[in-house]
Amino acid sequence: MYRLFHVPLSPFCRKVRLCLAEKRIEVELVEERYWERDADFLRRNPAGKVPVLRIDGTHYAESGPICEYLEEVHRDPPLLPEGAKARFEVRRLVAWFDGKFFDEVTSKLLYERVNRKIMGTGYPDSTAVKAGAKAIKFHLDYMAWLLDQRRWLAGDALTMADFAAAAHLSSLDYISDVDWTRSENVKDWYAKIKSRPAFRSILADVVPGFRPPAHYADLDF
Amino acid sequence: MYRLFHVPLSPFCRKVRLCLAEKRIEVELVEERYWERDADFLRRNPAGKVPVLRIDGTHYAESGPICEYLEEVHRDPPLLPEGAKARFEVRRLVAWFDGKFFDEVTSKLLYERVNRKIMGTGYPDSTAVKAGAKAIKFHLDYMAWLLDQRRWLAGDALTMADFAAAAHLSSLDYISDVDWTRSENVKDWYAKIKSRPAFRSILADVVPGFRPPAHYADLDF
Repeated sequence: MYRLFHVPLSPFCRKVRLCLAEKRIEVELVEERYWERDADFLRRNPAGKVPVLRIDGTHYAESGPICEYLEEVHRDPPLLPEGAKARFEVRRLVAWFDGKFFDEVTSKLLYERVNRKIMGTGYPDSTAVKAGAKAIKFHLDYMAWLLDQRRWLAGDALTMADFAAAAHLSSLDYISDVDWTRSENVKDWYAKIKSRPAFRSILADVVPGFRPPAHYADLDF
Repeated sequence: MYRLFHVPLSPFCRKVRLCLAEKRIEVELVEERYWERDADFLRRNPAGKVPVLRIDGTHYAESGPICEYLEEVHRDPPLLPEGAKARFEVRRLVAWFDGKFFDEVTSKLLYERVNRKIMGTGYPDSTAVKAGAKAIKFHLDYMAWLLDQRRWLAGDALTMADFAAAAHLSSLDYISDVDWTRSENVKDWYAKIKSRPAFRSILADVVPGFRPPAHYADLDF
């Protein structure tokens, strides 16, 4: 049995959970308060971060490499397309969301509003929150532009790029930070991905002290 | 002919240059002052960052996905090993250097000392510089620990993990921020990688206003 050390709202953990679930790999979820830097956990991952996936006694860290590994050992269903150029586009978008989107949006909204409270590192920095709320608009517009030309973010098939994006947006949606009225096709894309069986565990997440909006787990939102 | 839009000391650009050179792919280097957000450049990469690699009229952005793409279309010599687990370890270390090492070290030393001056964004933040100088010791020790058990960082063959690490360290070495006396085997590893033909262009880089130490380009340092 696979075991995933995670925190519920982490977009990096959610991306791995989505890839696992889409490939119908059973996994036991273990919440890890990684910021407390427990010695056992640091042995599992010297980087001190989640997600960490345990398979047959080996610990795998870093969400990008974990998803590539899962893709190589559990090919079906594929979350990377055939063809170097198409695979490049998927990886570029994963890097976009886990890099640029994370820096400009997730770290400024989710980390300020939620992680600070959970980790006890003070109040949200309102300048950061404002910058994040502004930047997400640009990103939603970029997604809308991509989805004008494609069924899914990286092309005509669902890929890890969609899961990377949905992982960030679902975490932000939990704290009501996504304006779904901004673009019809982004909303349609999210409704489509949210209704997949792989998404169920994510919609069932509960973080004490934070109550998601009513539409969070609603498939017909 | 491939064309790479880059800045000389960027570790992400250097990693791509090293992969290209190791695979003996000729490339024209074009310096791009990406922080000026030129409209033409933003069309090439809406993320507004370097590196951007142009191949047959298509622009490829994000150093990780670029290197994976190069690996798929120019397999020889391979910079990713055979076997999912070995490939995972390479990707984990690339993510370590481009993520954790970048956040804790490169962004705090190189970006404070060099990028601020070039981009005109003020003086280095001495708290950040101190934190970076402290953190690099931990990372050099981690590399020494890996190299106690392995010929190269990810195993017995040279891989992109070595290039990712060498890209960061070479940029920091240009501003004399690496203490090579800390670990004999890290120094040996760097001497070995530095003497590869792929490294020549990097050792010849010149950044106006910053003069590298005498040992920077010395293969017998």
